[in-house]
Amino acid sequence: MAAIGRRARHAARAIGRSETAAKNQALLAIAAELERRSGHLGAENRKDLDAGAQRGLEAALLERLDLTPARIGTMAESLRQVAALPDPIGGISDMTYRPSGIQVGRMRVPLGVIGIIYESRPNVTADAAALCIKSGNACILRGGSEALNSNKAIADCIHAGLEQAGLPADTVQLIGTADRAAVGALLQLSDCIDVIVPRGGRGLIERIAAESRIPVIKHLDGICHIYIDADADTDQAVRIAVNAKTHRYGVCNAMETLLVAESIAAELLPRLAAAYREHGVELRACAKTRDWIPEALIATEADWDTEYLAPILAIRIVAGLDEAIDHIARHGSGHTDAIITRDFARARRFLREVDSSSVMVNASTRFADGFEYGLGAEIGISTDKLHARGPVGLEGLTTQKFIVLGDGHVRG
Amino acid sequence: MAAIGRRARHAARAIGRSETAAKNQALLAIAAELERRSGHLGAENRKDLDAGAQRGLEAALLERLDLTPARIGTMAESLRQVAALPDPIGGISDMTYRPSGIQVGRMRVPLGVIGIIYESRPNVTADAAALCIKSGNACILRGGSEALNSNKAIADCIHAGLEQAGLPADTVQLIGTADRAAVGALLQLSDCIDVIVPRGGRGLIERIAAESRIPVIKHLDGICHIYIDADADTDQAVRIAVNAKTHRYGVCNAMETLLVAESIAAELLPRLAAAYREHGVELRACAKTRDWIPEALIATEADWDTEYLAPILAIRIVAGLDEAIDHIARHGSGHTDAIITRDFARARRFLREVDSSSVMVNASTRFADGFEYGLGAEIGISTDKLHARGPVGLEGLTTQKFIVLGDGHVRG
Repeated sequence: MAAIGRRARHAARAIGRSETAAKNQALLAIAAELERRSGHLGAENRKDLDAGAQRGLEAALLERLDLTPARIGTMAESLRQVAALPDPIGGISDMTYRPSGIQVGRMRVPLGVIGIIYESRPNVTADAAALCIKSGNACILRGGSEALNSNKAIADCIHAGLEQAGLPADTVQLIGTADRAAVGALLQLSDCIDVIVPRGGRGLIERIAAESRIPVIKHLDGICHIYIDADADTDQAVRIAVNAKTHRYGVCNAMETLLVAESIAAELLPRLAAAYREHGVELRACAKTRDWIPEALIATEADWDTEYLAPILAIRIVAGLDEAIDHIARHGSGHTDAIITRDFARARRFLREVDSSSVMVNASTRFADGFEYGLGAEIGISTDKLHARGPVGLEGLTTQKFIVLGDGHVRG
Repeated sequence: MAAIGRRARHAARAIGRSETAAKNQALLAIAAELERRSGHLGAENRKDLDAGAQRGLEAALLERLDLTPARIGTMAESLRQVAALPDPIGGISDMTYRPSGIQVGRMRVPLGVIGIIYESRPNVTADAAALCIKSGNACILRGGSEALNSNKAIADCIHAGLEQAGLPADTVQLIGTADRAAVGALLQLSDCIDVIVPRGGRGLIERIAAESRIPVIKHLDGICHIYIDADADTDQAVRIAVNAKTHRYGVCNAMETLLVAESIAAELLPRLAAAYREHGVELRACAKTRDWIPEALIATEADWDTEYLAPILAIRIVAGLDEAIDHIARHGSGHTDAIITRDFARARRFLREVDSSSVMVNASTRFADGFEYGLGAEIGISTDKLHARGPVGLEGLTTQKFIVLGDGHVRG
């Protein structure tokens, strides 16, 4: 593992100073290789699927593992999209002259070496490699053992594409062993790896964060709230509250708790209840809410702290904005929260005072996403506060150094 | 300790939404209190000095501990300077409309609660509190046990000032016990503290980083290099190389290793040797350098990895830019490195390829400093890559959240 780390550190210097054109050429070459070797990728993937079926992997996992021709096409398309994004590296900003005469500013540079640990989807191998190459970073990839053959075949395409562009193959290294101890060893390489990005369930992320000697960009719970204010446009409120819950259930930016201002409850709750009934959403509500939606189940304290990722919604009536902000501060996970209101001052207060990675006014929490925000692609969504917060795109894989220009200036 | 954490988290919400005027009023009121209570501060400081002298504290430590009337004046002046800085909080940037119709941008917000662990200088109590207040953060301060009475007296002034401005006194909490276990307990409060900033020697910082469950902004070694290129202006080169080494010896941005292009060595090294001799700087040099400076000691491998913080300089002749960049990559600490050259292309390559928090052209490494960079004040210099890199001012104590504005937009 130490040798992998040293090779990554070495490759990082080369990819870090590579020209944009070479990096883009590599991304396009990888896309072409993936398509050219589509049959081979399918055959390698078949080995993983068969082994998984034999081991009794559940159907949902097998489905995620499946590398259909359409999914190979999507991977190639993603690579081309990353190639089309602007190169963040080398961007200089904030150059100013100081009273001493020196000129000071910042230059955007790669982080160095990124370790990415992920679960079953093999497309992450190509997607993560693409973001690292474009942002001038080397990476060490550790995919799920159940996808090992698929990941190796994809890594071969990546190496071929890098070499065609004259870039070192070690820019992207895949740990090609199913040995679980490899992750533990990886997390100790603080001299060789600058940041770890885990992609997977909460269990994986918490285990990695606890064990790692390297900073980790974490994506923990998405307990997202919508607060419908007394001055909400009720049509907007219903539309957004239904979209945020029912557009997709298993995603981190789905609404899990709806807070409703008491004075608008009579008008709003029966309409919402009808809409949720139509979508088969189970409602768990506070006592006051059940005055208007008697069929709702009684919410327990635990409901306010639960990320359902399912057609279940917790509903609570609050006195107004202050109680809503308090509830979110106490029970939220700092992911994404929205207010629905026509009131300017309350919208402004909500934006400022709610301490989440995305705070919204009159929009569905489902928009919290790298593509929707225009980042072009995302390597994950960070619920941390330091470094990257919210959807993490290319910029989240970079940092800024200070640059100072002078004409022989010395400090007096 | 848990109660201190909870109070800090609570105070963070209040200070985070406070208006700029209230925060500035608090800073000015604290400055006035420090001056008003100057006699009392001196008396409390006397207790620490007497106890330190009895315990046999070395003279340098006692000197740092001494809170003279002039130093109290400087503390008050620093507070007024922080009050005069622009408020970073609430700043909105990069607002754009997306194809979906939503408007997306970022808002600068406080980190939340900052834990600051520092050694003997009591002025850090006021300086760190000022930066946290201005950036809308609550903080928990843990100063050196040898300065406990001084720090408590300063904390009393801070609380008085906060209360005069209508801000919660718990915005700044000082751990008022000399018990060493308190630091360990503090570093476990990951629910209540968002980041730890240690200020002190390498030993303190490494111990805290190893033990902390909370992200740490680290300031480790400053092994700073200057590379004098073949095309350097020799007058500039001598002026900068002398300034960077001799302006102050015990500081992290002092040059520790000088790299000289082979073709300019004959012209440059005798002049440099004479200048360093005048300043009493001991030279430790590679064999080639000793052809020109025979009186220099022989450098060992360990010299290239040493932060002397003393009138000692390592000198090495390199073939040119590539070897210089390689040397810095292998032996540097990622703090501050400079090139002296008139050559445009080599200046540009050095700026891009040297991976340090400050990279300079034709300027002394001594400029790597928050005040010199126009940050107004600094809480430290980060040698980390994530989040803050280089001098950390108010902005390093903040983060950005995404904000999304819509008119009832839902995701399709």
